[in-house]
Amino acid sequence: MSGTLFGVGLGPGDPGLITLRAARLIEGAEVVAYPALAGAPSLARAIAADLIPAGCREIAMQVPMTTERAPAQAAYDAAAAEIAAELDTGRDVVCLCEGDPFFYGSFMYLHARLAPRFAVEVVPGVTSLTACAARAGRPLAARNERVTVLPGPLPESELRARLEGAESVAVMKVGRHLPKIRAVIDRLGLTDRAVYVERATLGDERVCPLAEAPESAPYFSMILLTKGTDPWL
Amino acid sequence: MSGTLFGVGLGPGDPGLITLRAARLIEGAEVVAYPALAGAPSLARAIAADLIPAGCREIAMQVPMTTERAPAQAAYDAAAAEIAAELDTGRDVVCLCEGDPFFYGSFMYLHARLAPRFAVEVVPGVTSLTACAARAGRPLAARNERVTVLPGPLPESELRARLEGAESVAVMKVGRHLPKIRAVIDRLGLTDRAVYVERATLGDERVCPLAEAPESAPYFSMILLTKGTDPWL
Repeated sequence: MSGTLFGVGLGPGDPGLITLRAARLIEGAEVVAYPALAGAPSLARAIAADLIPAGCREIAMQVPMTTERAPAQAAYDAAAAEIAAELDTGRDVVCLCEGDPFFYGSFMYLHARLAPRFAVEVVPGVTSLTACAARAGRPLAARNERVTVLPGPLPESELRARLEGAESVAVMKVGRHLPKIRAVIDRLGLTDRAVYVERATLGDERVCPLAEAPESAPYFSMILLTKGTDPWL
Repeated sequence: MSGTLFGVGLGPGDPGLITLRAARLIEGAEVVAYPALAGAPSLARAIAADLIPAGCREIAMQVPMTTERAPAQAAYDAAAAEIAAELDTGRDVVCLCEGDPFFYGSFMYLHARLAPRFAVEVVPGVTSLTACAARAGRPLAARNERVTVLPGPLPESELRARLEGAESVAVMKVGRHLPKIRAVIDRLGLTDRAVYVERATLGDERVCPLAEAPESAPYFSMILLTKGTDPWL
């Protein structure tokens, strides 16, 4: 009998936002795997640190940060082979994922490689989308409103086209794209209702109107364009 | 000193998907509040049932199910007044919310009424969006892909316009709108990549290709249009 691969969402960063099921799986794990971008400390591992049992085997997936796809794909090939070797012995592997495994997460690359051969369970997690809304005190959507999620690296023209006519919008992965995104929002006259959220639920979180956002933003930052609270009365 | 209002996301239905922080708040609650639609048993209360302490005061918000807004608004006015009375005595109130409080949840109506007067903390939860993706084994988005969330009650013409040119799409609150949504998806030639998910993570969950979906769907059902797994290799 092969082991099961668990893709476990850890939420946005505060360990309190780990789910009960994720916590139980991590506490009972014999093997955990997690991404470690470009040799930096793994945020996923840091979120789950207090739950990882002593003596647990750890597989750190060294994923290169590059816009080219081939190096990252090769890293996932190698990680999938290492995880498959554990599953083949009958051991389960708990893969730690920031946020939710299937929402802009790296787990989907392992899933694509391993789901055809092994039992996989995906444990959904709290996304940065709703965590940022919670921390900003800004409801995302109700009733028949649409929500649009746009990655910040999209070209300016596409961001503009997708923002026009949208209702509730979250621009994710802002990072170095902040000046471009800010310019688009400004030209559309939407700056007044835009909120900037950086590292939501972490110790050094920052929430402010977009107009007061810093010049440079980290990768884990988001801009929310929502209606504010009045319409909900 | 007034009490604090906690808006606590419970996730999509499986109590294992409650977060550690939400569980701690519920276990320590003196007062909980939750929506109960049109006199039916409250799903939010059912999800949290094992965590609600004995002797806890319960405020069931009777929200009428109607497309008219006035009756629901009156119900939220009454519930807000009842909750405010508790907060005024210095007691905290833990409001139980299916999914996430700010993602198509009813908590935002309480938030609008009470946040101007009381301390409020919103605890984000796992949304049905990522729970359905997890249960269907279908990644929602990676890299620079857009995600669009569309409520099923939208008019046919708008659903069609928003589906065209979209990448990853979730149609929420399918319910009695299933035939209309199915027709739109079919006309756009997208049925092959559409998955139907009903009551994700609950005991009577159903996941199937849209082509095999039942004739009538419950309110808690969703259609996912995603790329499938191959592109992630």
